Amino acid sequence: MNNRIERVLSNMKAHGLSQLIVSDPKSIKYLTGIEIEPYERLFAFLIKEDGKHVFFLNNLFTVPKTIFEEVWFSDTDDSIGMIAEKLSGGTLGIDKTWAARFLIPLMERRPDVKMVLGSDCVDDSRAIKDDTEISIMKKASEINDTVMHKALDFIKEGMTEKQVADFIDAQFIKEGATGSSFTTIVSFAGNGADPHHEPDDTVLKKGDAIVIDQGCMYEGYASDMTRSVVCGEPSDPEYKKVHDLVRQANEKAESIIKPGVKLCDIDAAARDLITDAGYGVYFNHRLGHFIGQTDHEQGDVSSVNQNTVKPGMIFSIEPGIYLPGRFGVRIEDLVLVTENGCEVLNHEDKHLKSVEY
Amino acid sequence: MNNRIERVLSNMKAHGLSQLIVSDPKSIKYLTGIEIEPYERLFAFLIKEDGKHVFFLNNLFTVPKTIFEEVWFSDTDDSIGMIAEKLSGGTLGIDKTWAARFLIPLMERRPDVKMVLGSDCVDDSRAIKDDTEISIMKKASEINDTVMHKALDFIKEGMTEKQVADFIDAQFIKEGATGSSFTTIVSFAGNGADPHHEPDDTVLKKGDAIVIDQGCMYEGYASDMTRSVVCGEPSDPEYKKVHDLVRQANEKAESIIKPGVKLCDIDAAARDLITDAGYGVYFNHRLGHFIGQTDHEQGDVSSVNQNTVKPGMIFSIEPGIYLPGRFGVRIEDLVLVTENGCEVLNHEDKHLKSVEY
Repeated sequence: MNNRIERVLSNMKAHGLSQLIVSDPKSIKYLTGIEIEPYERLFAFLIKEDGKHVFFLNNLFTVPKTIFEEVWFSDTDDSIGMIAEKLSGGTLGIDKTWAARFLIPLMERRPDVKMVLGSDCVDDSRAIKDDTEISIMKKASEINDTVMHKALDFIKEGMTEKQVADFIDAQFIKEGATGSSFTTIVSFAGNGADPHHEPDDTVLKKGDAIVIDQGCMYEGYASDMTRSVVCGEPSDPEYKKVHDLVRQANEKAESIIKPGVKLCDIDAAARDLITDAGYGVYFNHRLGHFIGQTDHEQGDVSSVNQNTVKPGMIFSIEPGIYLPGRFGVRIEDLVLVTENGCEVLNHEDKHLKSVEY
Repeated sequence: MNNRIERVLSNMKAHGLSQLIVSDPKSIKYLTGIEIEPYERLFAFLIKEDGKHVFFLNNLFTVPKTIFEEVWFSDTDDSIGMIAEKLSGGTLGIDKTWAARFLIPLMERRPDVKMVLGSDCVDDSRAIKDDTEISIMKKASEINDTVMHKALDFIKEGMTEKQVADFIDAQFIKEGATGSSFTTIVSFAGNGADPHHEPDDTVLKKGDAIVIDQGCMYEGYASDMTRSVVCGEPSDPEYKKVHDLVRQANEKAESIIKPGVKLCDIDAAARDLITDAGYGVYFNHRLGHFIGQTDHEQGDVSSVNQNTVKPGMIFSIEPGIYLPGRFGVRIEDLVLVTENGCEVLNHEDKHLKSVEY
């Protein structure tokens, strides 16, 4: 743990910050081991360059004694005033998630303190997984592969999206995961053209395209993968071509990942292939996102992210093409950046296959 | 819907605000009917006094055409710049939930605009339920009563907390709810002394105190209630006295609710009774919270809330006494403020009873 705080302090120094309020509960867990779901209540960890870090805790939170200074308050105490007192003058870094209901009153209480976004100091550290995190995340993806394989065996003509999603969720538990890491997506035919469609009572018909996007939680870390398959012969004559293209875009992007490559260049590798084939307008999202304690962590693989890839980073590669009213195809793996390339954490075959009909 | 926006505009006028950014997805749904779960992405609705309201939407969101101006952006667009452009000078109200990752960059882009907390303009309107909302919330509490009754019949010595919680969650679905409105709390013996204990494998033994805090979602609205019971004769000699006291505190508070009464006075009615009996230090949370589209909505029944009660408000009354290592007792109802008093929405008996052993 302390090693993690040291990394954050060193990032703070590089950003010229002597103090930082961490509010993302996952970041606080990452740095201190203390896990709380604060809902609408204030929960914050103040990191100071002099090492005198302070925990701000509502007395409704059940927390073992920490090694940090603890400031406890009740629902009716002036908790913002308590934070204001602990700040030095100058600049204060603020975590990305901190809500306006805390931030604005704190600004009003300490007009002498300049508040800037400081989350990168923690998030850049969280983005690079250590050995423990890597072994947990590999296992989470292993479970995800197993369940995806089972799901593809399970789906049959006549089933509803919900039925399949329920099956997947149940299998996660059976395979040792604690649950799904986001709402399992199972989309048939035209529903697949909405990347975030939620499973409903749509029934699978012969010829339908299918998108399955699923992930599980294992020991506090997430997995995430997508496969696109079809029920029999695809009824849409363009489907096979689009499926091939998306798979190639996925493989192309994965093939160039190694330390030093820019994230925007990885996005471009997949996007250019799709754009050149005339489908650029139908690939309407970034190529990938970072992942760890939650399905989406800070950081993405997009055309505007100039940051370079470093060993230990884990992110998704998920090109997609969505033809409104017709179908969608998305193929997604998680990749772990290694010293000289990357390891793809998902192994379920990506080529077009048909489920039972 | 438009009536709701009118109410917000009138609140804005009273607060001296000509523009307000609404970011809480439930508030946006309340005002526009548009429901999105944006996760980490920007989703905002700008209300302007001249009626030229603007929606800010990521092109990954699936939204039917609205009657408002729509500004669409992709993950890589400068969405904060797009908001900055639409603002007038002067003061801008900001919703309580807006995250620092949006707010701080917007402040940096528009240093000429003073940003203040403005959520009350929407939340004060949301706090007063209209007829449609009231009838949905009554039904949600009816289901909650039914399921609580079933749960008390179901619990037996030897069961685990998780078993009981799973039963409750399954019954919600069976009774027509869409799910639970928060993690169902079932706490045995000493676990009950943590108000937010989550169900685990603790086994119910004869003499144990039991706390059940549960709620369901029905047509987008939440219910919430708590009952405290025992398995056989309570093993702790102080239990009966504490149970009586908490029930009396609950009933006392409910008896004084009517339009015009201050929320802090309702809190005091329950708290004084508990404090006078020497248990004040063991009642470590506010008396209640507002509720609606989520289990906890803005607004509470606490010692610092000087606001007065108005017809149409729905909130919880939930005094509790928590004796560390021994047991907890909490008794919670939802109440609806009427023209000349209040209607208690939960009907399951509050007196001490024993489950099967």
